[in-house]
Amino acid sequence: MSNKLTTRNENYSNWYNELVVRADLAEHSEVRGCMVIKPHGYSVWEKMQRALDDMFKATGHQNAYFPLFIPKSYFSKEASHVAGFAKECAVVTHYRLKNDSETGEIVVDEDAKLEEELIVRPTSETIIWNTYKGWIQSYRDLPILVNQWCNVVRWEMRTRLFLRTSEFLWQEGHTAHATRAEAIEEAEKMLEVYATFAEEWLAIPVVKGVKSPAERFAGALETYCIEALMQDGKALQAGTSHFLGQNFAKAFDVTFVNKEGKEEMVWATSWGVSTRLMGALIMTHSDDNGLVLPPKLAPIQVAIVPIYRQLEQLEQIREKVMPFVESLRKKGISVKFDDDDNRKPGWKFAEYEMKGVPVRLAIGPRDLENNTVEVARRDTLEKNMVSFDDVEATVEQLMIDIQQNLYDKALKHRTENTREVNSWEEFTEVLKTKGGFISAHWDGTAETEEVIKQKTKATVRCIPLDAPEEEGKCVFTGKPSSRRVLFAKAY
Amino acid sequence: MSNKLTTRNENYSNWYNELVVRADLAEHSEVRGCMVIKPHGYSVWEKMQRALDDMFKATGHQNAYFPLFIPKSYFSKEASHVAGFAKECAVVTHYRLKNDSETGEIVVDEDAKLEEELIVRPTSETIIWNTYKGWIQSYRDLPILVNQWCNVVRWEMRTRLFLRTSEFLWQEGHTAHATRAEAIEEAEKMLEVYATFAEEWLAIPVVKGVKSPAERFAGALETYCIEALMQDGKALQAGTSHFLGQNFAKAFDVTFVNKEGKEEMVWATSWGVSTRLMGALIMTHSDDNGLVLPPKLAPIQVAIVPIYRQLEQLEQIREKVMPFVESLRKKGISVKFDDDDNRKPGWKFAEYEMKGVPVRLAIGPRDLENNTVEVARRDTLEKNMVSFDDVEATVEQLMIDIQQNLYDKALKHRTENTREVNSWEEFTEVLKTKGGFISAHWDGTAETEEVIKQKTKATVRCIPLDAPEEEGKCVFTGKPSSRRVLFAKAY
Repeated sequence: MSNKLTTRNENYSNWYNELVVRADLAEHSEVRGCMVIKPHGYSVWEKMQRALDDMFKATGHQNAYFPLFIPKSYFSKEASHVAGFAKECAVVTHYRLKNDSETGEIVVDEDAKLEEELIVRPTSETIIWNTYKGWIQSYRDLPILVNQWCNVVRWEMRTRLFLRTSEFLWQEGHTAHATRAEAIEEAEKMLEVYATFAEEWLAIPVVKGVKSPAERFAGALETYCIEALMQDGKALQAGTSHFLGQNFAKAFDVTFVNKEGKEEMVWATSWGVSTRLMGALIMTHSDDNGLVLPPKLAPIQVAIVPIYRQLEQLEQIREKVMPFVESLRKKGISVKFDDDDNRKPGWKFAEYEMKGVPVRLAIGPRDLENNTVEVARRDTLEKNMVSFDDVEATVEQLMIDIQQNLYDKALKHRTENTREVNSWEEFTEVLKTKGGFISAHWDGTAETEEVIKQKTKATVRCIPLDAPEEEGKCVFTGKPSSRRVLFAKAY
Repeated sequence: MSNKLTTRNENYSNWYNELVVRADLAEHSEVRGCMVIKPHGYSVWEKMQRALDDMFKATGHQNAYFPLFIPKSYFSKEASHVAGFAKECAVVTHYRLKNDSETGEIVVDEDAKLEEELIVRPTSETIIWNTYKGWIQSYRDLPILVNQWCNVVRWEMRTRLFLRTSEFLWQEGHTAHATRAEAIEEAEKMLEVYATFAEEWLAIPVVKGVKSPAERFAGALETYCIEALMQDGKALQAGTSHFLGQNFAKAFDVTFVNKEGKEEMVWATSWGVSTRLMGALIMTHSDDNGLVLPPKLAPIQVAIVPIYRQLEQLEQIREKVMPFVESLRKKGISVKFDDDDNRKPGWKFAEYEMKGVPVRLAIGPRDLENNTVEVARRDTLEKNMVSFDDVEATVEQLMIDIQQNLYDKALKHRTENTREVNSWEEFTEVLKTKGGFISAHWDGTAETEEVIKQKTKATVRCIPLDAPEEEGKCVFTGKPSSRRVLFAKAY
């Protein structure tokens, strides 16, 4: 813990990479593109999972589990899906190893070649809709509201911890409906769930919108998304919810008999968020001293560091604080009283700062005399001397205040870095010097979107759901446009 | 729901296969050996996970996540491990598909061949110990108490839902310790956790023991296990905890500097239970009418079926029961008031019986007049008329009674089907006519174990931890033996 992190100003990318490792969140494995999520990182992910899972269940969804492997032929069944997905993936071709009869080494047994290759799921629409075929006969069987927590693999050549890895963890919801309207309602409802989760738990303000046709999920008629802005002015897609129409029902022949006895194709949605949210969380709130976590997602919310020379003093401090510790725990606040005698207080302070513990208390012999305790908050780095009689109320209030402050700070940053732009010169200038979200008119064509991307690396992040109608001219072609969209460079 | 299940007496194996599908727990996918766990089955698994995870955390463990893929060469590093594991497995050889330039079909891109094949993890000791190498330098870094919830793949030719599938879900704990004694203590502690979980949650009595050397986990010095007895007299291994000695530390060169500044090899354990427990749960308690679930693991604990002709009657029933429903829910009891107007009461009764709902209530217009409700318990199939004023207390008590009754019944079955046997004639006779656990003397050699297995299909299930010392003669060879062991045919 002696070395400082690269600062965000020096090199934002290096800052991030160093922080993820130093805060004990994750590390690269020796397997290309696959990460190890360490206990501290995983416990944050678990808290996200629990909160999201509760929200899914409160909206009527159930969890299930589908196979890791998908037969290669499934991907050919939905034409636009295969173009988007089936290429960069892990292919299982054999099911046995053996000892080479000459060298004795372990080799692939060529006699155990699969008739049809299996693909490690990059996403599960195909195998799930092939399964739903057997579950759906009548309108009585609908809707199906199912979610799956699992690992997926998309082969990546350039990886970054949490943001882009070959294997990642996620949830994928897959729902089946009797009507188009009900499916669209579901896709929009789950977007709302994601937005609420991002703002209330991650403390990340998000823009709700729809993707341009070019940026849609492979196989979707509409892709809803939430977009967040990172501290370096780049955008990050934090979750997507897709209205899939009847594409997968057609591909896998999934029909139902409606109330009038007529056969119809089933309507579909899918929606997902992944361990990428860990990247968004880190990049939104953390600082040059390390990780900053919103209290609702912090595995340890309060760390108490005793300052002592003799073990007798440690015992006096313990006696003083334990009733307080128990009282906080009863209120659901996770507290660590760090009595590890192998580490010095200064080491512990740096450790909890790096790991993003929201509130750190320090208490020594003089505090015992004065009935005080030092309260340090991680988000502002402020320290205050507080009467021990008030510390419980102070800590409880800080849980609320820090959560709110992180959100407010992120919202302020986004507001200050969202700029209306009305000319191509302005567009390129803002992108070059400031970054952030650019609100601009666009003629709605894939061609213009592509040219802008080639010239500037900025893409249409989304067409905001709340964008008002406004007559305007495309910032690049000058053609007419009826509303502004958000451009940005993105992760 | 019109057709009856095959009965256990007719064909136990068919009964099981039909029940798993009819109770909506799981089904075979089109991917060889891989199952789909349906929402009802998955919600039971989730309850198991939650209970176990709480127990792991209460004993100081944290969760983490390690890669799905393991480089082939890792398996060669621990000699006995590779012999046990690396053979029947899914091998990833390529990382890209492409459209064939002639046919247009999707084919494996031969240009995208991996330099070293990747194995889909059959268990994670190798990759985890390769990772621990970077985490452990000093005694201060020990112990490491980590668990992982994940999917694993072991290629199987003959599969059965939950009991033996190529892909299954499990947890695998992997701990690292400074001393041999501490590692053994950990392995024994986790066996206790498993035994407590099996008895208190699954309501399955288990025998705690150690495996014979021939049945040990590949790479272990000692394998602790819990063994359960199914209704058909076959045993099922319900969980294992391994003392791995320094084998993996040696294989992956994991050392630490002790307090005296001397370098030492690290000591290891691993322990796991899987979705196989679902099979144990089903086979221990269920009957010819369908699934029977212990209340602690039932997704729906109480189902209420209103009996009515007119919707007005339904509303009267709803008004009567909703305060009671709310009151039960506040007590943490999950209740479903089934007002589905598309299904008749008889259909609902059969459905809840098949799905294992512990308590079913029925209430109709006459009950409203008489202030009564019909209470049916799934375990005994008893029905009683109860005053509505007493029904809440009755239901609460049934949650406890049914849990206890299932355990007692299973324990009685095991006790009645555990037989001391003192001759080879008796041994083969009991196996042929009765099955169950056979408590017999064995000379302790792998040769005798193997011959007995070849002749009878029975194996040494375990050497019970509480087996008293007793002079005796091996049931097969007549050589001296110092304690009885448990034999059985097993799943």
